[in-house]
Amino acid sequence: MKVLVIGANGRVGSLLIKKLATQHQVVAGSRHAKPINNSGNVEHRYIDLLDDVNSITESTNGVDAVYFVSGSRGKNLLQIDLHGAIKTMQAAERVGAKRYILLSSVFALQPEHWKESFLNDLTDYNIAKHYADLYLTTQTQLDYTILQPGALKEEQGTGKIETNVTSPGANSIANVVATLVAILEDDSTIGKVILMQDGDTPIHDALHSVRIT
Amino acid sequence: MKVLVIGANGRVGSLLIKKLATQHQVVAGSRHAKPINNSGNVEHRYIDLLDDVNSITESTNGVDAVYFVSGSRGKNLLQIDLHGAIKTMQAAERVGAKRYILLSSVFALQPEHWKESFLNDLTDYNIAKHYADLYLTTQTQLDYTILQPGALKEEQGTGKIETNVTSPGANSIANVVATLVAILEDDSTIGKVILMQDGDTPIHDALHSVRIT
Repeated sequence: MKVLVIGANGRVGSLLIKKLATQHQVVAGSRHAKPINNSGNVEHRYIDLLDDVNSITESTNGVDAVYFVSGSRGKNLLQIDLHGAIKTMQAAERVGAKRYILLSSVFALQPEHWKESFLNDLTDYNIAKHYADLYLTTQTQLDYTILQPGALKEEQGTGKIETNVTSPGANSIANVVATLVAILEDDSTIGKVILMQDGDTPIHDALHSVRIT
Repeated sequence: MKVLVIGANGRVGSLLIKKLATQHQVVAGSRHAKPINNSGNVEHRYIDLLDDVNSITESTNGVDAVYFVSGSRGKNLLQIDLHGAIKTMQAAERVGAKRYILLSSVFALQPEHWKESFLNDLTDYNIAKHYADLYLTTQTQLDYTILQPGALKEEQGTGKIETNVTSPGANSIANVVATLVAILEDDSTIGKVILMQDGDTPIHDALHSVRIT
């Protein structure tokens, strides 16, 4: 499978590309000249999320699946995290890349939780993610999965997570990446919004116990 | 008819209330203690767009129609112009206020025009308005009209406008307000997105010549 990762140079994207490249042809999409992680299976393509949807569509050509794991870290939420993400959904639809996996944030589709814990400091971010998630679920025909982790931590991965999250938690980046990889292999995740945090259940099993909310 | 105007203290809102109050009971919604224009037909209600949808719903109770003419002037686009607007749509639906009139911005639903003229400096604003407009047209059952004027000017109104706009223009605030008032009286505008600028056609006629794009 040929898999495009948008946000190739980020903390999640760089590790995700490394993992995916053991099994797939990977296209590393970023506005930087070259991604940090590179190997024989990794091709780089220039993608600037500020460009129009036509340019982004060109860079999406020929891929079977798209991961969006980019983010502006609060610096350009409207143009990158919201509208930038949605332009990549439109590009995926135009080129017929049906499978689309979006990295979002815990409770992005449930504003009633936005005053809880660390989310209380991220209202602008939650709004941007909310409307990107909403667009994907209501305005596209993509085979989507939305992964909504809690706070990302630079820690070792345990391979064990929890998916039926009831309050904002935390995750190692390695567990988030392993879950993103597992989602692509597991078509039961299509059409689902999956909340996650580090936990006690092996990733494969946790993905199969997702309750539809 | 009981008509709620959200953004009562703004340049558009204050004039709109004055005009509406000659024919309707008006509820002036703002987070300020009292609106600038007040009269016997005008009741004030506290509405803070940063509050949750439950609070905004309380303030929307008992009205037949809602105007949203608020804006953060670029200072809080995600929380006011985007999410704040959408919370008022949700509130309107909850209380059964079917008629909803949204003041938007020219070409907000057509990103292919966002590099033209003064719009090129307003990308963040255009994105916020875009997703608010999109939500209203796709995610609600409201009897909506979206008015999309060009640049607002502090000039005398002529009572004459153009609705089939092909490039970004300008409008006197008085003409925008007169058009907003006329929209409420004209059910042929329901379900339409109306682009406008100052022009040569009387408002009533211009509203009847809107081409669906």
